[in-house]
Amino acid sequence: MSNDKRIHHLGLQRKVCSAEEAAQWINPGDIIGTSGFTGSGYPKIVPGALAARIKQAHEQGKEFKIKLLTGASTGPELDGVLAEVNGVSYRTPFNTDPKMRKRINDGDTNYLDMHLSYVAPLYRSGALGDMDVAIIELSSIRADGTLVASTAVGNNQLWLNSAKKVILEVNHWQRAELEGMHDIWEVSPTFPQKIVPIVNPHDRIGNPYMTVDLDKVVAIVETNAPDRNAPFSPSDGNARAIAGHLMEFFNYEIKKGKMPQQLLPLQSGIGNVANAVMEALSQGHFENLSAYTEVIQDGMLSMLETGKMRIASATSFSLSPEKAQYFNDNIQKFRQKIILRPQEISNHPEVIRRIGCIAMNGAIEADIFGNVNSTHIMGSRMMNGIGGSGDFTRNAYVSIFMTPSLAKDGNISSIVPMVPRVDHISQDVQVIVTEQGLADLRGLSPRCRAKVIIENCAHPTYKPLLTEYYKLGLKNTPMQTPHFLREALSWHEKFVSTGTMLPK
Amino acid sequence: MSNDKRIHHLGLQRKVCSAEEAAQWINPGDIIGTSGFTGSGYPKIVPGALAARIKQAHEQGKEFKIKLLTGASTGPELDGVLAEVNGVSYRTPFNTDPKMRKRINDGDTNYLDMHLSYVAPLYRSGALGDMDVAIIELSSIRADGTLVASTAVGNNQLWLNSAKKVILEVNHWQRAELEGMHDIWEVSPTFPQKIVPIVNPHDRIGNPYMTVDLDKVVAIVETNAPDRNAPFSPSDGNARAIAGHLMEFFNYEIKKGKMPQQLLPLQSGIGNVANAVMEALSQGHFENLSAYTEVIQDGMLSMLETGKMRIASATSFSLSPEKAQYFNDNIQKFRQKIILRPQEISNHPEVIRRIGCIAMNGAIEADIFGNVNSTHIMGSRMMNGIGGSGDFTRNAYVSIFMTPSLAKDGNISSIVPMVPRVDHISQDVQVIVTEQGLADLRGLSPRCRAKVIIENCAHPTYKPLLTEYYKLGLKNTPMQTPHFLREALSWHEKFVSTGTMLPK
Repeated sequence: MSNDKRIHHLGLQRKVCSAEEAAQWINPGDIIGTSGFTGSGYPKIVPGALAARIKQAHEQGKEFKIKLLTGASTGPELDGVLAEVNGVSYRTPFNTDPKMRKRINDGDTNYLDMHLSYVAPLYRSGALGDMDVAIIELSSIRADGTLVASTAVGNNQLWLNSAKKVILEVNHWQRAELEGMHDIWEVSPTFPQKIVPIVNPHDRIGNPYMTVDLDKVVAIVETNAPDRNAPFSPSDGNARAIAGHLMEFFNYEIKKGKMPQQLLPLQSGIGNVANAVMEALSQGHFENLSAYTEVIQDGMLSMLETGKMRIASATSFSLSPEKAQYFNDNIQKFRQKIILRPQEISNHPEVIRRIGCIAMNGAIEADIFGNVNSTHIMGSRMMNGIGGSGDFTRNAYVSIFMTPSLAKDGNISSIVPMVPRVDHISQDVQVIVTEQGLADLRGLSPRCRAKVIIENCAHPTYKPLLTEYYKLGLKNTPMQTPHFLREALSWHEKFVSTGTMLPK
Repeated sequence: MSNDKRIHHLGLQRKVCSAEEAAQWINPGDIIGTSGFTGSGYPKIVPGALAARIKQAHEQGKEFKIKLLTGASTGPELDGVLAEVNGVSYRTPFNTDPKMRKRINDGDTNYLDMHLSYVAPLYRSGALGDMDVAIIELSSIRADGTLVASTAVGNNQLWLNSAKKVILEVNHWQRAELEGMHDIWEVSPTFPQKIVPIVNPHDRIGNPYMTVDLDKVVAIVETNAPDRNAPFSPSDGNARAIAGHLMEFFNYEIKKGKMPQQLLPLQSGIGNVANAVMEALSQGHFENLSAYTEVIQDGMLSMLETGKMRIASATSFSLSPEKAQYFNDNIQKFRQKIILRPQEISNHPEVIRRIGCIAMNGAIEADIFGNVNSTHIMGSRMMNGIGGSGDFTRNAYVSIFMTPSLAKDGNISSIVPMVPRVDHISQDVQVIVTEQGLADLRGLSPRCRAKVIIENCAHPTYKPLLTEYYKLGLKNTPMQTPHFLREALSWHEKFVSTGTMLPK
C-alpha cells in the first residue's frame, strides 16, 4: 500500500491504526452509521473486528449489540459478520444479506424497512437517536483533510456530521481517480429547506469531497478489499420477453409524442430482468439516454461506454465482479459521465418529479387491481425491503413494475387476488409487465384494471382462476373494488399449507 | 345582476347566453373538465341543463354519457344532478356526492380515485384523453379577457388550456374581491419541468388571473348561487380527546427542539376531528401559525382573523354556510392572508417536502402494523377517495392519521389485524391518534409498532382481541411482520356477515 499513498493529511496520518484498535472505540448499545449502498463502498474490516469483540463479550455472558444505520444493503463483511454474532439490535434502512435477513425474520434484529430518500429526514427528526460512531469507507483523504468517498455516497456526509466519533477506512482497492465523480450537497437541516437545484441528471450542485470535524476522527484503517459485487444475472427468456414488451411500450409512447427519442431519465433496479431491459435498450434505436437512479449496474456502464447513454446520476455502483474490475481498469472513460450523489438527492421526490423519470422496479407480486408487494413473502417474511422504489414510483413520469408471471416452478402466481402486503398502492402502479404482456393501467378504474391485468399479465395456468375470483367478487361485493374477503388471501394460505397456489 | 357587472371584456359580453344554450355545446361521449374542489367553485347551472338533455336523450332511448374530470369533489348541482340521470361514464379524481358514490359502487360510473397533485401530470401524459369542453366558474372576467377564478383553483388553468371549447359560469354570489387572492402558476408541459420556486407558504410566484384563448369560449352564463358549503361538524368528546393528544405531541416536539414555536406549515382535512384540532390550536400557546394545505376550513379562517395564523395557502375553501357568508361579508380582512393555487402546486411533493408540512389526515382504519385505509369500506365499497392525503403524507415532516377507535356503535374497531385496502403504507404512517392515545411510530420496526398501536390507540373492548391476533401471528409466522393469514381479514368478514366485529 505504501506506493499508493491515499492519506495526504499529516495530522490524520498519525491516526492510522489496526481494525482491532479502531473497533475499541465502539461500545455496547452504540448507534453506528456506516457507508455502503447495495454492496458498494461499505467498510470492510472494522465491522469484522467489532464482530470479534461482540463474540468474545457474548462468550463471557455480556450483552453487546449495536444499532446499525447504513446507506442501504452492504456486504458479508458488514451485515454478514455482525448478524453471525447476533450483534445488531436494530437495523435500517435496507438489507439483502441472507444472515441478517434471518436475524430480522427471527426477531433478533428490529428492522425498519424504509424509503431510502427518507433516512436522512428521519434521522434529523431525532427518531433514530443520536449517532455515536460513523464508519466510512473512503478512496482517499486530501491534504486539507477533506474526504473522498469510494463507490457509494449514501448517507455518508450526514453520518460524518452527526457522529460523536468517526472511524475512516481508506480502501486501496478503490481507485483514487474516483475523486471528482461525487457531488456532495447537503439538504438544509431546518425548514424551509433550500431548493434542490438539479434540473438535468448531469447537473452538478455540490462539492466533490466530504467534510468532517477532524477532532472527531478517532481512527483510520487502511484496507485493500473489493466491493461485494453480486455476480451478473444473465437474462433468460422471461426477462427478454419482459424487456421486449417494454421496448414496444416505449416506442409507442415516442410515436404518440409523449416521450422524446432519448426517452426520459431512467431509473432501474438490478437483477436479470433489469439486465435484459438494459440489453434491449442498448440494442434499440434510442440515443442519448440518461439515468437518474440509485445504482449504476453493468448495463448502464456498457451504454455509457458506447455513448448510447450520455450521463448516469446515482448514489452508488452495483456491478458484477468482472464489470467492477473493468471499471477500475478503465475509470478514465467514465469519470465525466457518472455523478454519485447523497441518496437523499439521488432519490429526492423533488428532482424525480421535475425531471420526469421512467421508474422500472421489480415486484414480488401484484394483485388484480394493481397493488404491488415488493417486500414480504406470503405477507410476513421480509425479503429485502422497499428500498428506493417508493421514492421513484410515486414521483415518476411513468411507474413500471416487472415480474415473471410465475415463481417456484409454477406453484406461485405473481398475479394474485389480493396482495397480503402492499408496498405500492394502485395509484402508483401504472404499468405492469410480465413475460405474458404489458398492462398500461393509467387512467383505468379498478374494474378495468382487473380485466387488463388478468388478460395481459397473468400466466395461462392461473388466468381462469383469477377470472373466477374476480367474478366471485363482482357477485358478492359488486362495488368499486370487488373483493370476496373470505377468498382474498386463500391463494397465499394454500401456498403456506400445501406448497402451491394451484388447486388439487 | 346588472348593478354588479362582472364581465368587463366587450367581446365576451356578447357570448352570454342561458345555461340551456350553453349545454348544447356538449356532445355524448365528451370529456368534460370542470372547476370545483371540495364543494367550492364548481359550475352551478350548466351541469343541470346538461343533465336535463341527458335525461331527455335517455327517455328517447339514446346513449348520452360524458366523462367528468374536476378538481376534486363538487356539489349536488354537478355530481349530484349528473349521477341522478346516470350521465357519467367516467369520473376522476375525487367525489363525495352520495348519488355519484352510488353510481361508482354500482359500476355505472368508472371511477379513478387518484392523488390530487397527479391529475395534471396524468392528463398531460395523454392517459385521460383529450378534453372536449371545460366548464369553469369565475368570479369575474377582466377587461383584457383574462379570468378571475372563484373559490377554487383546482385544475382550471389546465382545463382552459386543453379544452377545445370553453363554457364560463360567472357567479355573482362569489365576491369580486376574490381578485388578487389567486396565484396561477403553470408547471412546464414537458420535462424537465421548471423548479417550483415556493419556499414559504406566503410566496407568490404567478399571476392573479387565468388565461384562455378567447376564440374557444363558446358560451358564458351568469349565475348567483352559493357554494355547497358542508355544515360545520362540531367537535365531540372523542374529537377533543384526539386533539388533546396531538397538542401534547406538538408541545413535546417543540420542547425537544424539533419543531419551532410556530410549528411547521399545517395540512389538515375537514370534519369534526379536524375542527377540534383547529380549536385546540387556536386556544394553545402557538403563534404565527401557517398552513400549506388543500382547503381552508372554518377553523383556519378564525385563526387568520385573530392573527394566530399568519398565512394560509390552499387550492380552495371548504367552509360551513355561516362561515362562507362571514367570509363574503368580510373578505377584505382575509385578502392578504390567503393564497389560492392550482392543486398541482398546493399539493406538490416538491414544495411539501421543502417546507416540512405537518400532515394531519383522517383514516377509516389502521392495522396493527400501521397501514392505513382511507378509502374503501370493508375493502370494496368506495367512500370518497384518497384525495390529497398521499401527496402530503409521504412528503411531510411528520405524517399523522386520526380516527376515533370505534365506529358503528362499537361494532367496528378502527384498529384491525389487517386492512383490506391500503392507501398509506406503514412507512408513510408515522403517528396514529385515537381518543385513546397517540402512537409515535417513527423509527419503529413492525413488531414494536404493533405493540404501541394496540397499547396506545385501540379501544379497550378490542385490545385483548388484537393482542390475541398478534400473538397468533407471532406463533404461526414469527417473522418480520407476523400475520396469521387465515384470520387476517376475519374481523371484516365477520362484520360483513353479522354486522359486528365483536365475537358472539
